[in-house]
Amino acid sequence: MTVDTVKGYAIKDTNKYTDFELVEYKLRTEEADDITVHVECCGCCASDHHTISGGWGPLANKFCVTGHEIVGEIVSMGSNVKGFKLGQRVGIGAQSGSCGECKPCKTDNEQYCPQGKDTYNAVWYNGEDCQGGYSTHVRAQQRFVFALPDEISSEHAASMMCAGLTVFSPLLRNGAGPGKKVGILGIGGLGHYAIMFAAAMGAEVYAFSTSDSKKDDALKMGAKHFVNTRADKDFAKKLKGELDLIISSASSADLPLNDYLQTLGVHGQLCFVGMPETDWPALKSQTMASNGCYIGSSHIGSGKEAAEMLKLAVKHNIKPWIQTMPMKDAAKGIQALEKGTVRYRTVFIQDIDK
Amino acid sequence: MTVDTVKGYAIKDTNKYTDFELVEYKLRTEEADDITVHVECCGCCASDHHTISGGWGPLANKFCVTGHEIVGEIVSMGSNVKGFKLGQRVGIGAQSGSCGECKPCKTDNEQYCPQGKDTYNAVWYNGEDCQGGYSTHVRAQQRFVFALPDEISSEHAASMMCAGLTVFSPLLRNGAGPGKKVGILGIGGLGHYAIMFAAAMGAEVYAFSTSDSKKDDALKMGAKHFVNTRADKDFAKKLKGELDLIISSASSADLPLNDYLQTLGVHGQLCFVGMPETDWPALKSQTMASNGCYIGSSHIGSGKEAAEMLKLAVKHNIKPWIQTMPMKDAAKGIQALEKGTVRYRTVFIQDIDK
Repeated sequence: MTVDTVKGYAIKDTNKYTDFELVEYKLRTEEADDITVHVECCGCCASDHHTISGGWGPLANKFCVTGHEIVGEIVSMGSNVKGFKLGQRVGIGAQSGSCGECKPCKTDNEQYCPQGKDTYNAVWYNGEDCQGGYSTHVRAQQRFVFALPDEISSEHAASMMCAGLTVFSPLLRNGAGPGKKVGILGIGGLGHYAIMFAAAMGAEVYAFSTSDSKKDDALKMGAKHFVNTRADKDFAKKLKGELDLIISSASSADLPLNDYLQTLGVHGQLCFVGMPETDWPALKSQTMASNGCYIGSSHIGSGKEAAEMLKLAVKHNIKPWIQTMPMKDAAKGIQALEKGTVRYRTVFIQDIDK
Repeated sequence: MTVDTVKGYAIKDTNKYTDFELVEYKLRTEEADDITVHVECCGCCASDHHTISGGWGPLANKFCVTGHEIVGEIVSMGSNVKGFKLGQRVGIGAQSGSCGECKPCKTDNEQYCPQGKDTYNAVWYNGEDCQGGYSTHVRAQQRFVFALPDEISSEHAASMMCAGLTVFSPLLRNGAGPGKKVGILGIGGLGHYAIMFAAAMGAEVYAFSTSDSKKDDALKMGAKHFVNTRADKDFAKKLKGELDLIISSASSADLPLNDYLQTLGVHGQLCFVGMPETDWPALKSQTMASNGCYIGSSHIGSGKEAAEMLKLAVKHNIKPWIQTMPMKDAAKGIQALEKGTVRYRTVFIQDIDK
């Protein structure tokens, strides 16, 4: 039986972005490729805050139920769905749809499909609203529903669906592994995964932060080096040309970007996975010519990569550092994110229909 | 016999950057790895203009003899030099020295040596001045002296030493070849080589310009497509996700950079080889996340790549489009560069001691 009417914690006004209100709404109409999941828990991503506070622009719909780090059980499947079964525990991340026909879709790059649909704050192909996981149910195309290994608990798997995958993809694609030195910039939800995954992949990890407050944690996560960039103004000179790759999960663009670029070796890459609301500091050709480095962004990851990430997490027994709270406390989770006090991810536990 | 005292056309004041004056000066002291070349001809590069006009900052020495697209005959060799002979015709590009010991130097990336020395407007390791090829003689480490095939005339080879190599290296390193679509932005000295080389390498070339004035030329050079970006405001939408690589040789940073980035496919790269004097237009993570693209710079090329480029030029009978003038007319060459009237490179012919 298809679930249609569901409930979720919604924001209606970006000026009142902690005023979550329990609302009832209809899921978008189920299509043949769709899987509907009853939400067990959902991580609290910086995207949620950027979206509901209007930092990325106005809301796409009349109200917004955020949440795209979802774990739950399958309660309904369209007629085309294959390889899943009712009751199966699965995850859904930041994307819920793509065209399936374009070059990115056909080359395991569906996260770069120009017609891709975000899990929430999006309008589906048929004009209906897409709503997220601070709710009882979420609907997504089967391609964006990830089977979960038994070894990983739901609370741990939740934030892997966005935070984990978002850093795993560029680590994998840019060759993080033995013999490589990888810098991780911004030690939060994404960054703490980046440290753990990069270390598990065999890279030598440099964690960068603006204070020593996360030093012990970063070293426990697997960083070999910790650099306090405010205390050590000469860090870029000391590390000149040393790093192969930097993943920046910083949510602010107020960074000594030119310093970081100097720490890269020949053709090294600085890849943003954090999406600050403002422009990067100014760059010019000359700065980047001395080492021929590149700067760019990466957008979540593919389903294929999600499966590889989960395997790596099982193999190395990687567990995110999380705190849990009932979903009704979404405002508290968002406020903690804003204050930077989360260590290192909040996961909301279903409380609407349980 | 070592040549010590030489003559060259020098600029002494960046405010009077077309007041070339024939001066006599001492070459830096010959070292065991050095080759000294009697200059036959020398290309006129945008770097020459940026340098003598102060656009890249003050002069490094009391006067500056520019020119780093040099062809001439070997007149002297240090005791360590191997594989060259006196009287041999060779080329020298934009770099004349490197440490030889660092990781870039040991991995055919000597152009990224942190201790690398430019051919002119540089101070050598021993504190002496480095001067360039608008002169009778130039001295460089043997690693930066390139043997020239007989099939290429000196006038044609000259601008390959910088302009040619500077675009060939990022084309090669970023996979320009069959099945790849490569955009070339800025059709000048560098850009015209980029079109010819990319086409010869088998790529499908898109030439971008701000008017139609170079359209016929670009198509003759080998471009399959020509895009007038001012006339066609929607070019980025039409080409969304199409290109694998863009090489920008534009000497100005006043570009619709965000538009160009949208024309790249997944993880496509926009590589600057032109070195504008100002910052790039503002960029942010989101812009680059939709296709996971990268932007960066490339600095000339390696000796190994110079040899490959010359082979390609012979194989495909690639000839630069040049105009020649006597070296005493250096000011005219610089002025033509500034006005953008060069089609597509000026090469100065030795006239000081001939």
